[in-house]
Amino acid sequence: MVVESVGQGVTEFKEGDHVLTVFIGECMSCKMCKSGKSTICQVLGLEKKGLMHSDQKTRFMVKGKPVYHYCAVSSFSEYTVVHSGCAVKISPHVPLEKVCLLSCGVAAGLGAAWNVADISKGSTVVIFGLGTVGLSVVQGAKLRGASRIIGVDNNPRKCENAKAFGITEVVDPNSCKEPIAQVIKGITDGGADFCFECVGDSDMLTNALESCCDGWGVTVALGVPRVKPKISAHYSLFLRGRTLKGSIFGGWKPKSDLPSLVEKYMNKEIQIDDYITHNLPFDEINKAFNLMAEGKCLRCVIHMPR
Amino acid sequence: MVVESVGQGVTEFKEGDHVLTVFIGECMSCKMCKSGKSTICQVLGLEKKGLMHSDQKTRFMVKGKPVYHYCAVSSFSEYTVVHSGCAVKISPHVPLEKVCLLSCGVAAGLGAAWNVADISKGSTVVIFGLGTVGLSVVQGAKLRGASRIIGVDNNPRKCENAKAFGITEVVDPNSCKEPIAQVIKGITDGGADFCFECVGDSDMLTNALESCCDGWGVTVALGVPRVKPKISAHYSLFLRGRTLKGSIFGGWKPKSDLPSLVEKYMNKEIQIDDYITHNLPFDEINKAFNLMAEGKCLRCVIHMPR
Ligand SMILES: NC(=O)c1ccc[n+]([C@@H]2O[C@H](COP(=O)([O-])OP(=O)(O)OC[C@H]3O[C@@H](n4cnc5c(N)ncnc54)[C@H](O)[C@@H]3O)[C@@H](O)[C@H]2O)c1
Ligand SMILES: NC(=O)c1ccc[n+]([C@@H]2O[C@H](COP(=O)([O-])OP(=O)(O)OC[C@H]3O[C@@H](n4cnc5c(N)ncnc54)[C@H](O)[C@@H]3O)[C@@H](O)[C@H]2O)c1
Repeated sequence: MVVESVGQGVTEFKEGDHVLTVFIGECMSCKMCKSGKSTICQVLGLEKKGLMHSDQKTRFMVKGKPVYHYCAVSSFSEYTVVHSGCAVKISPHVPLEKVCLLSCGVAAGLGAAWNVADISKGSTVVIFGLGTVGLSVVQGAKLRGASRIIGVDNNPRKCENAKAFGITEVVDPNSCKEPIAQVIKGITDGGADFCFECVGDSDMLTNALESCCDGWGVTVALGVPRVKPKISAHYSLFLRGRTLKGSIFGGWKPKSDLPSLVEKYMNKEIQIDDYITHNLPFDEINKAFNLMAEGKCLRCVIHMPR
Repeated sequence: MVVESVGQGVTEFKEGDHVLTVFIGECMSCKMCKSGKSTICQVLGLEKKGLMHSDQKTRFMVKGKPVYHYCAVSSFSEYTVVHSGCAVKISPHVPLEKVCLLSCGVAAGLGAAWNVADISKGSTVVIFGLGTVGLSVVQGAKLRGASRIIGVDNNPRKCENAKAFGITEVVDPNSCKEPIAQVIKGITDGGADFCFECVGDSDMLTNALESCCDGWGVTVALGVPRVKPKISAHYSLFLRGRTLKGSIFGGWKPKSDLPSLVEKYMNKEIQIDDYITHNLPFDEINKAFNLMAEGKCLRCVIHMPR
């Protein structure tokens, strides 16, 4: 996005600045931000009511009625208002229509692999769900030197497509006779070192946990379940040495860490372009939603009229 | 225990050696033992059928009928047979009637605090369940310099008794109006750094997880639920940065690590004696079980007739 104007008291940005906007912000002064250990800012954390963090009001109106914000960013519009803590300045030379993917999915996946799981060289990694988030974990695992990167997806198109991203093996649960955790344990000598849930299904998270090995297996939750929000797992999975953790935005602190990811992209240390399978103009946004719902795209970038 | 005789091929022990016996062993040659990262030996891990690991038979008979082993140790008897991988040689100068507590509960608690959670100085720690396991976590937390050590127990006797072990505050859930997680969050500015489940109740494990803070809260499962073996937790607890892990025997490798714990006891770096609230002769063992069931003891050491 390009800054059109700045609010009172904002000194960090000026008109014409290029920014990435993020669904969680960094106030730099709450307990969480000051800890240096968390991305869940107490002031600018996940907003759920569609209101601005600062005054719990909206900045959009249609015929006198409020239109709610979405994920603090509200970027399905030509102009928006975001809290300065949710905007990150980047160089004007960086292609916005590519690095916009670092505002969520790609950063979430890379961060889960690096910051949250801290994948070590030679590891066996299983990724459940091969959308953009899952495939970003794949990239993260590959760059860490994982020796086996096993993808699990029930959409054959996604399985096929994943090969280009560095997956070494792929499993479609629909074509398996045994439960998926048993299949994974079978091909990994008892379980993987790391599992990632990138579907958004709490039962899949249980599967992921069960697919990890005793002793040191780590499962990372990334998906956001839409139906059943509670995960259920046998206590012995933990007693036998498994760890379950998770993250929002891959454990990155948006303002502190995003610029370094943008730099990595510009230095070709990470790739983003291949996750963009479609580009559509704003007035075809519903086509983009359909592509997503039908599992036919990875990311579709929406271009605003100029 | 004192070695009475050794089986064929066992060179590590001789008659008269003093040993601690442990419910899990260390074969030194499976994937888990060789990893150096796990206590769950693939050969001598938790046995569940009451049979010797080596040949899946029993070594006890009464009138021609097999009597099953218990926890690989079967120590409620004057003579027993254990796998050499489940025995750890210790100096004959060490008081067996004290360090026997390192064969399970005390080691499990100290290890959970040190190896599994890795409690850091100044942390806020909450321990659910103030039996010997919980109070050993308390000792571990204190030795790591935790600044607040909050105990939770619904037995007022246990709450009172815990103060001598280094607890800084105690909460009896029965005397709280709000759910326990809310109480803990209230007194810890949003949640503790570390929570430990030492009750053996899967709902308590959920409470522990909810009592941890966003961002970096770690919950360690130690308890073995007798009734409901599945734990249930909202996915967002993980997405917001909590970690759930657990351990058997505190992450100690029995043969490799127990001798150093025994040494710490002999050097007065850790204490064990205060966990022994009762001593009874073998023929009063049922009295010991009653004390335990009624929550009237911590550990009761059973003494064999000489
Ligand atoms: N934690 C975070 O910070 C964060 C960030 C972005 C997205 N997310 C969440 O991560 C999840 C994945 O996001 P995405 O953009 O990659 O979504 P996506 O829809 O593109 O990918 C999900 C993949 O899971 C597959 N799938 C669905 N059901 C399956 C099943 N039963 N078995 C196997 N595979 C199955 C689909 O075929 C698809 O390829 C979503 O829940 C999303 O909300 C989390
Ligand atoms: N993971 C391991 O390696 C390991 C090792 C030893 C023991 N354990 C398990 O750890 C648990 C604790 O062992 P222990 O020997 O200390 O047992 P214990 O019975 O002495 O202690 C349990 C404590 O929990 C309290 N309690 C019970 N219900 C409660 C409730 N609803 N709310 C609050 N407090 C409650 C009791 O009053 C008691 O003080 C057991 O489940 C045991 O099987 C695990």
